[in-house]
Amino acid sequence: MGSVGRVLYPGRFQPFHNGHAYAIGWLLERYDEVVVAVGSAQEGFTCQNPFTGGERVEMIRSYTKARGIDGRVWIITVPDIRMPPAWTSYTLSLSPRVEAVASGNPQVLDPFKWLGLKTIEIPLEKPELYKGTVIRGFMAKGLEWRHLVPEEVAYFIDEIGGVERVRRVCSSEGR
Amino acid sequence: MGSVGRVLYPGRFQPFHNGHAYAIGWLLERYDEVVVAVGSAQEGFTCQNPFTGGERVEMIRSYTKARGIDGRVWIITVPDIRMPPAWTSYTLSLSPRVEAVASGNPQVLDPFKWLGLKTIEIPLEKPELYKGTVIRGFMAKGLEWRHLVPEEVAYFIDEIGGVERVRRVCSSEGR
Amino acid sequence: MGSVGRVLYPGRFQPFHNGHAYAIGWLLERYDEVVVAVGSAQEGFTCQNPFTGGERVEMIRSYTKARGIDGRVWIITVPDIRMPPAWTSYTLSLSPRVEAVASGNPQVLDPFKWLGLKTIEIPLEKPELYKGTVIRGFMAKGLEWRHLVPEEVAYFIDEIGGVERVRRVCSSEGR
Amino acid sequence: MGSVGRVLYPGRFQPFHNGHAYAIGWLLERYDEVVVAVGSAQEGFTCQNPFTGGERVEMIRSYTKARGIDGRVWIITVPDIRMPPAWTSYTLSLSPRVEAVASGNPQVLDPFKWLGLKTIEIPLEKPELYKGTVIRGFMAKGLEWRHLVPEEVAYFIDEIGGVERVRRVCSSEGR
Amino acid sequence: MGSVGRVLYPGRFQPFHNGHAYAIGWLLERYDEVVVAVGSAQEGFTCQNPFTGGERVEMIRSYTKARGIDGRVWIITVPDIRMPPAWTSYTLSLSPRVEAVASGNPQVLDPFKWLGLKTIEIPLEKPELYKGTVIRGFMAKGLEWRHLVPEEVAYFIDEIGGVERVRRVCSSEGR
Amino acid sequence: MGSVGRVLYPGRFQPFHNGHAYAIGWLLERYDEVVVAVGSAQEGFTCQNPFTGGERVEMIRSYTKARGIDGRVWIITVPDIRMPPAWTSYTLSLSPRVEAVASGNPQVLDPFKWLGLKTIEIPLEKPELYKGTVIRGFMAKGLEWRHLVPEEVAYFIDEIGGVERVRRVCSSEGR
Repeated sequence: MGSVGRVLYPGRFQPFHNGHAYAIGWLLERYDEVVVAVGSAQEGFTCQNPFTGGERVEMIRSYTKARGIDGRVWIITVPDIRMPPAWTSYTLSLSPRVEAVASGNPQVLDPFKWLGLKTIEIPLEKPELYKGTVIRGFMAKGLEWRHLVPEEVAYFIDEIGGVERVRRVCSSEGR
Repeated sequence: MGSVGRVLYPGRFQPFHNGHAYAIGWLLERYDEVVVAVGSAQEGFTCQNPFTGGERVEMIRSYTKARGIDGRVWIITVPDIRMPPAWTSYTLSLSPRVEAVASGNPQVLDPFKWLGLKTIEIPLEKPELYKGTVIRGFMAKGLEWRHLVPEEVAYFIDEIGGVERVRRVCSSEGR
Repeated sequence: MGSVGRVLYPGRFQPFHNGHAYAIGWLLERYDEVVVAVGSAQEGFTCQNPFTGGERVEMIRSYTKARGIDGRVWIITVPDIRMPPAWTSYTLSLSPRVEAVASGNPQVLDPFKWLGLKTIEIPLEKPELYKGTVIRGFMAKGLEWRHLVPEEVAYFIDEIGGVERVRRVCSSEGR
Repeated sequence: MGSVGRVLYPGRFQPFHNGHAYAIGWLLERYDEVVVAVGSAQEGFTCQNPFTGGERVEMIRSYTKARGIDGRVWIITVPDIRMPPAWTSYTLSLSPRVEAVASGNPQVLDPFKWLGLKTIEIPLEKPELYKGTVIRGFMAKGLEWRHLVPEEVAYFIDEIGGVERVRRVCSSEGR
Repeated sequence: MGSVGRVLYPGRFQPFHNGHAYAIGWLLERYDEVVVAVGSAQEGFTCQNPFTGGERVEMIRSYTKARGIDGRVWIITVPDIRMPPAWTSYTLSLSPRVEAVASGNPQVLDPFKWLGLKTIEIPLEKPELYKGTVIRGFMAKGLEWRHLVPEEVAYFIDEIGGVERVRRVCSSEGR
Repeated sequence: MGSVGRVLYPGRFQPFHNGHAYAIGWLLERYDEVVVAVGSAQEGFTCQNPFTGGERVEMIRSYTKARGIDGRVWIITVPDIRMPPAWTSYTLSLSPRVEAVASGNPQVLDPFKWLGLKTIEIPLEKPELYKGTVIRGFMAKGLEWRHLVPEEVAYFIDEIGGVERVRRVCSSEGR
């Protein structure tokens, strides 16, 4: 079988949506395995980061299990350290060994490039819709959002009362 | 004598105003003691957090002493850790033992509820006026703000030159 | 199928050894799923913590995959925050939802008990031998250690030159 | 009455013992008010720091209330930042305004002196006995310790099962 | 020669521009030596902080060497701690001894004044133009910015591809 | 003139001694410039780290100026982040660009090697004598230590009362 090619895919996944699902599929066509790094993992219960790190891990694994790709995906939790250039080796040290780092976001990729790593710019799928801010905004306003995320994720968010939570925490921004 | 009922009341208190005073009164009707947790305690000298943690402790105790409730109130200082879900047990560990957590802010209450604690939503008193942002805004613009805070607090803020400080640090936002 | 029972199992896993493997087996007899929380995840390349968080994730998953229990095990990475009581809700927030916390170490369990969680004291298997300090000591001194860890772990440690690393970093304690 | 003289008194208070009580008395003879700064406040449930910050606050206030000095004592919680020279202004910013800093420990005083503050070296009372390490050691070994702390503190420690806790967490040092 | 007078000059220097150069000159007329403290030193590769701490050190020293003032200037790197009042003694502890602190920004000066240090308000030179936000905005939009910084700095920014970086990271704000 | 070769040289320098001076000389024979990274820069006033970051910067520059190598040496201050693998890119981000990292300590070098950087093992000069622990021990015990450091450093330590400080803070270990 030869050696395993693995790629790191960092994101916040608030929530995990179709754009993320598409990106994982795109990466699995090119690599044997993907390491999904759940960033800002220490966050939760705020308007920008309503879901805890663990909830996001559950969301993502419910998706990978349902799609039969669980064996090729790793999910790690990466709390913020608020030092972008140092975040690179920090995240690499929490991750199974990888050959490259992939993202659609230059702010994520450029520090890895600066450090000498191979970086891959993922083409974004419908970035104006498949976007955390947009989806959380729909939730807060009571609009339909379920078609923008995999069904396993919609099911999970409903199970934990996620929409009601987003509505509450977004109503009190500014404490 | 029976057991003592205690409730935790977290806030930023920039500055301590009539809404906070009202909330403490409301809680003391329902509990024997209140633990006031001065959050973002490490802050000071910025437009959003002009007063240091210690200054806010002084403000609050000058009020509780003047009103004869000092013996039923605890005041603790809680610096930020920037991890909302972990902030719960962090704050509980800095606090005398409590039975419940009270706030008018869902972002404060919901993580405690998630953790299994009893939470109490305090009804807000004139939230459009008794609000830190509004009061700091009045100070920065030279408008009258003293009627929005207890007189002991107004006296303290004048004593430390608080209005001049707010004006200066709010003029230089963005460094 | 009914609800899934999940238990949290925190540890440092420097390295993952037979005692840890035994504990996971013991927990899987009692719960549907185990969440392995790799603590001190930000460490690596020191005598007490020679392996990075990501290397420990690889070690552990190479074991769970080989034993066919990968589908029932979750592995998360939990960097230190150096506040034992707050570590509880921090770790819970990084973890898929759990019913209980299990460990052989009172320092890990007692803060969770203080917080009101169900805790389970795992009986230790040969604690004088199946112990990180002992195994790292054997590595540093050139003694045999492979019989103390699962064979997949021994294979992984050899693959990354782990013994040589332990020898080097333990030789320079004190900088 | 004129201006109030206040002095800062930092310590870890694991637990609060007769030496600390003596120091507070000594300071109240010289100053109007004492600010007790509970250091390493984020700790708890370890052998060196068995009691949480909040438990230490309760211990100390049960003492000051019983002795009728509650009105002249402030108690603040100061989590570690692990930067000794910066700890000075950090602690000052969490404290009501003070004129001087007092301690029996040069490591505490010297950074304040370096910063230009007035420092006061408190004479230690029976330092070989009235010492946290000694008292925790007695607790762990099942020896008598109650005569080394104020009775209110002994009562509190018994109430929370403190001796059993010390025994457990000290038995598992090294995880 | 007598004693050396030294002044601390903190800033973010994103990038180092003519206003900063002017300030250093102004201070060197009044003091023997200036300590330039590169703040938010752990940042880099974001729209607000595109350049790493080390790149800013290089920028500044390329300027001081070219102008023959290298021997009278110190450059230190000061990562954020996000506690404004504590930042004072933190920065002082990283700096060669100084007599005073100078800045054009009240948010920087006021905490030092609170701590009892001598502070100096530097008159700002063309603050509407010589300003980091303005210069980064020009870079992001493809406008001319080179006349706003010393030529050594412009040369350095071109050498590291700084304009292209600013354009990329500012295009993806919000991740 | 061609490109400049620069090497990073991290250490704690408590205090800067003959072994460090030798290492800098050794590196300047091989590289055009050396970047001295003062690690654990946020420390000071403890037995293991008696001197502040800024005092160590002064010590080192007093040496490089006296020896005429100031123009070829950079000195940066690097506070601890307590995550060894992430410390690599953190330190690189605070440093002017370098080609390689040099140290006599495998714990420093190995994480950089893991990250893909060129590392250089500096031969240690009399490591049993030219060693911070040894020198601080001599100071604490009142033994002669001046022959173990460059004379400019001895002069500086005397100027700030360093020996008395070491004696005091080492006498109170354990607070």
